[in-house]
Amino acid sequence: MPNKITIAIDAMGGENAPDKNINGLSLFIKSNKDLNNVYFNLYGNEKLIKDKISKYKIPTTNIKIFDTISVVSDEETPLKAIKNSKDSSMWKCINSQTINECDISLSAGNTGVLLVISRMILKTIEGVSKPALAGLWPNKNGVNVVLDLGANVECDENNLIDFSEMGSALYKSLFTDTPKVALLNIGSEEIKGTETLKKTYQLLKEISRNGDFIFNGYIEGNKITEGNSNVIITDGFTGNIALKTAEGTAKFITDSLKESLKENIFSKISLLFSYFSLKKFKKKLDPRKYNGAIFLGLKGPVVKSHGSTDAIGFYYSIDLCYRIIKGDLMNKIKNNLSHINAKE
Amino acid sequence: MPNKITIAIDAMGGENAPDKNINGLSLFIKSNKDLNNVYFNLYGNEKLIKDKISKYKIPTTNIKIFDTISVVSDEETPLKAIKNSKDSSMWKCINSQTINECDISLSAGNTGVLLVISRMILKTIEGVSKPALAGLWPNKNGVNVVLDLGANVECDENNLIDFSEMGSALYKSLFTDTPKVALLNIGSEEIKGTETLKKTYQLLKEISRNGDFIFNGYIEGNKITEGNSNVIITDGFTGNIALKTAEGTAKFITDSLKESLKENIFSKISLLFSYFSLKKFKKKLDPRKYNGAIFLGLKGPVVKSHGSTDAIGFYYSIDLCYRIIKGDLMNKIKNNLSHINAKE
Repeated sequence: MPNKITIAIDAMGGENAPDKNINGLSLFIKSNKDLNNVYFNLYGNEKLIKDKISKYKIPTTNIKIFDTISVVSDEETPLKAIKNSKDSSMWKCINSQTINECDISLSAGNTGVLLVISRMILKTIEGVSKPALAGLWPNKNGVNVVLDLGANVECDENNLIDFSEMGSALYKSLFTDTPKVALLNIGSEEIKGTETLKKTYQLLKEISRNGDFIFNGYIEGNKITEGNSNVIITDGFTGNIALKTAEGTAKFITDSLKESLKENIFSKISLLFSYFSLKKFKKKLDPRKYNGAIFLGLKGPVVKSHGSTDAIGFYYSIDLCYRIIKGDLMNKIKNNLSHINAKE
Repeated sequence: MPNKITIAIDAMGGENAPDKNINGLSLFIKSNKDLNNVYFNLYGNEKLIKDKISKYKIPTTNIKIFDTISVVSDEETPLKAIKNSKDSSMWKCINSQTINECDISLSAGNTGVLLVISRMILKTIEGVSKPALAGLWPNKNGVNVVLDLGANVECDENNLIDFSEMGSALYKSLFTDTPKVALLNIGSEEIKGTETLKKTYQLLKEISRNGDFIFNGYIEGNKITEGNSNVIITDGFTGNIALKTAEGTAKFITDSLKESLKENIFSKISLLFSYFSLKKFKKKLDPRKYNGAIFLGLKGPVVKSHGSTDAIGFYYSIDLCYRIIKGDLMNKIKNNLSHINAKE
């Protein structure tokens, strides 16, 4: 763990910014962690940020504010943003890593723009052709890492191998133990799937001998939540469809349940008795707990928070940044990737 | 609607066959439908079938039994099955359509073998290069049709156009109104996704002028259950991942809920009060209600039941066969496909 952690926060990104961002920060600072050596650089409108800091009564000792002029809007295209947005809170937040002000950058702003300017400013790690977006996915035993969630529509076997090594490094930096890696496919037999997947399967079998991860073979969509694999590898198209389908299904089921439990006087009474159990159930599956996608493969780590999340969701994404740096992600990635290169 | 409907049933396919198959049939015959002109041809071990028919006290007037020798096992590969299984209940069940004994075939047996021998025996409709597996998917307002669910790992724009016309015909034969078709993608903007999807998007915009369907553009995974589109089009790889991910998510959530509601005395009491509401909730989402994938694009319709479903699930797949033929699926497909060919 490094002696000092500095987290760069785009205070203006996402719905209800900067209120939720600063409120999320206050929740994080008030949490029970040992935060003596954790610093926060906030990028955005200084006056607005200061107002919120006093609203949420945050001690300012470990906080620096960097006044920025513009905000990247949700409608902005990456191309326009590159031209116009060098004064924006997002740009400055990412760029802080190149001038050694910060260890990691967090934004809840426009995803497309964030991916493009992060790549532009931080540059890809040597040997990695495509950076990937990794997310946390709840399962029976805890949490999976899944990547790519949408940065790359098409991926070849080398990309998928990179994702496996980087995803394993991420898992290890968050949870310490050696992860089990599985390749998302439409069946568990070796002969199933696309040619790319078959090639990746063989390569993963070989590379796993390095000990960075245990290769668990193919995994089908219905097994993601079973918790027998820790890192699920797929291309960005499939990963994005799987993630969103899971989100939609979860919402559909919980909405149906809510409706059912409010439909008559008996079910309403039942809610009184099940209050604490349902609260625990809700807490376990609360998507805010898994908020924060990690952009892997760049020379510095970037975390993307959901734009529409609230202060609690934003708190979790700050916590994710903290754990990533505490777990020494960048060195773990470097170490893992060196094993592929050594192989070649 | 045809004057007479004959459904061919592989009585030996799936777990607990022939018990669940014949029990499912008895549930169907005892349902309140007007079944005067509906006939059932059962393929399998005559003695076993007769035992079950008397066990479930089914009137035999509309039933014919065809004694067959072998059963396709779950472990059998398609290649082996083609060689060895011409005496099997599955083969005879499919083949019954070519000798004008039946209008539709239903099996809960080995999926891979069923797809291959169906294609071999029934042949693909002229102009269709790839048949597809379509499924029913519950949504807020009722049921979607989704295809392909796994028959084709890779699909081009012409395949996806065929799927749109065939899926629309299926929807119309089941629910009568003109369906809204949407293309599964990772974003809703025109520029998103693979080249194949972009081409398909343009073609669907044009072809929808025929009036077979309304083109609703792209749909993201989290919108499938919202019920604003009726037919969701995707390649078999993505469709299979999406379907299984949704199944896994649903199981994960309902398992977590069950666990929560059993954890203490208060939540157990709550179960008494919410009994009927939860039962209704469970019924709405009962996967058995959506049991039955339809193999589209062959000269005759084939329905695949889940192998592990029970008698109620099998009942629903028989009901699906009945509704498909009642809705005149094959003529609707022919009609829809003629619009693409006219275009070319």
